[in-house]
Amino acid sequence: MPTDPPPAEIVTAGMLVIGDEILSGRTKDKNIGHLAETMTAIGIDLREVRIVPDVEDEIVAALNALRSRYSYVFTTGGIGPTHDDITADSVARAFQVPIDVDPRAVEMLERHFPGRPMNEARLRMTRIPQGAELVDAGGTGAPGFWIGNVIVMAGVPRIMQTMLEGVIPKLAKGAKILSETVRADAREGDIGTELRAVAEAFPDVMIGSYPFIDESGPNTNLVIRSRDPARLAAARAAVETMLAEVKAR
Amino acid sequence: MPTDPPPAEIVTAGMLVIGDEILSGRTKDKNIGHLAETMTAIGIDLREVRIVPDVEDEIVAALNALRSRYSYVFTTGGIGPTHDDITADSVARAFQVPIDVDPRAVEMLERHFPGRPMNEARLRMTRIPQGAELVDAGGTGAPGFWIGNVIVMAGVPRIMQTMLEGVIPKLAKGAKILSETVRADAREGDIGTELRAVAEAFPDVMIGSYPFIDESGPNTNLVIRSRDPARLAAARAAVETMLAEVKAR
Repeated sequence: MPTDPPPAEIVTAGMLVIGDEILSGRTKDKNIGHLAETMTAIGIDLREVRIVPDVEDEIVAALNALRSRYSYVFTTGGIGPTHDDITADSVARAFQVPIDVDPRAVEMLERHFPGRPMNEARLRMTRIPQGAELVDAGGTGAPGFWIGNVIVMAGVPRIMQTMLEGVIPKLAKGAKILSETVRADAREGDIGTELRAVAEAFPDVMIGSYPFIDESGPNTNLVIRSRDPARLAAARAAVETMLAEVKAR
Repeated sequence: MPTDPPPAEIVTAGMLVIGDEILSGRTKDKNIGHLAETMTAIGIDLREVRIVPDVEDEIVAALNALRSRYSYVFTTGGIGPTHDDITADSVARAFQVPIDVDPRAVEMLERHFPGRPMNEARLRMTRIPQGAELVDAGGTGAPGFWIGNVIVMAGVPRIMQTMLEGVIPKLAKGAKILSETVRADAREGDIGTELRAVAEAFPDVMIGSYPFIDESGPNTNLVIRSRDPARLAAARAAVETMLAEVKAR
């Protein structure tokens, strides 16, 4: 696993969710929201997510598209012991490296699950692309792995979360995006024109408008984001002044 | 909107989720699971999902990639009244058609929301690419639209669901995929080898293996899917025979 990564101002990530069960609606994904929150918290920009079926060509194409664009790519799903678990083989093909049973993975499985017979199916979980480092699931499941800028994790949320926790200390982190939320107490359509003027006055600050509906009716959250605390504070003040002016009309 | 679509054996869909708030983790997407379930129920194969930020180049590139590959593309998000709502303009650019305020959309907004001032921000919601048909939000919000094979919907789940309900009768549907779930009462690693043999004997049937953990410990759901009821039944019988044999050992 890469150690002591160089500091970088902006570190990006893509995510590849692998599994027919997500696309059929049978399983509701919980990993996208968790990865998104975690990346934001540690200062990595999640820029794109793709969900693809258990089809090798689709996995390879999506992985190659994502790994060439972002600092890191996180995959979830398809590393279990059954015939439909084809993620490890697909990753090896994407990187054009051989894949075989990895003695380190066998040792890890035997250590975490003593007494379970090491049959053909379980050995399948120990197939790791050449050159990859293992990502320990800490007794929650078989290992994931890290190759190049791609981190391959399980689909079961509890196992995915354990793997991610183990990986985080080794990731390069960028300057964190700071965020503030202002509740507008107004309908989006009643403040949109004025909000655009604020956004144009702060082109370096991200200002998002998110409508919601609660007991008191339609309302809007304005989310202001920047890596620069001073610009964030200035934009927030401008948003609040704008809201006061609209309401005073 | 296209009417009386020709019957087709296999109808496919892609989905494009648009919004910084999903990628930052601030908002947890609920539309992917809903669209996936709905498509499965009406016999359309959802084959791919992408989540992209509020960046026009990204939206255009992803939309063009998806619309060339699948029968339909459904987008969610970015059709509100504020400066960060750029979906309609991005779709117009992807289709290389002009976009302007659409009198039908103005009429629809005024009908559903009488008394709300038609200001610059609200007029923004009535900008519709040339050649598109409107998708009525039925009083829950501004209209979406349908252009070519692309259906553009709101990001707020309640509004998205209303739009989707209105669109469903007009979609071409394929032969429905039938699905049966067999609870293995076994660990995935203990049946994986034998399950592979069943899957290889039924190459025309999709057999998925989904581990889960409940009070009684690690377990596995085997999901068998096919468009052909006879093949589905035969594969299910083979799976059940396999499970009985493994347990009798």
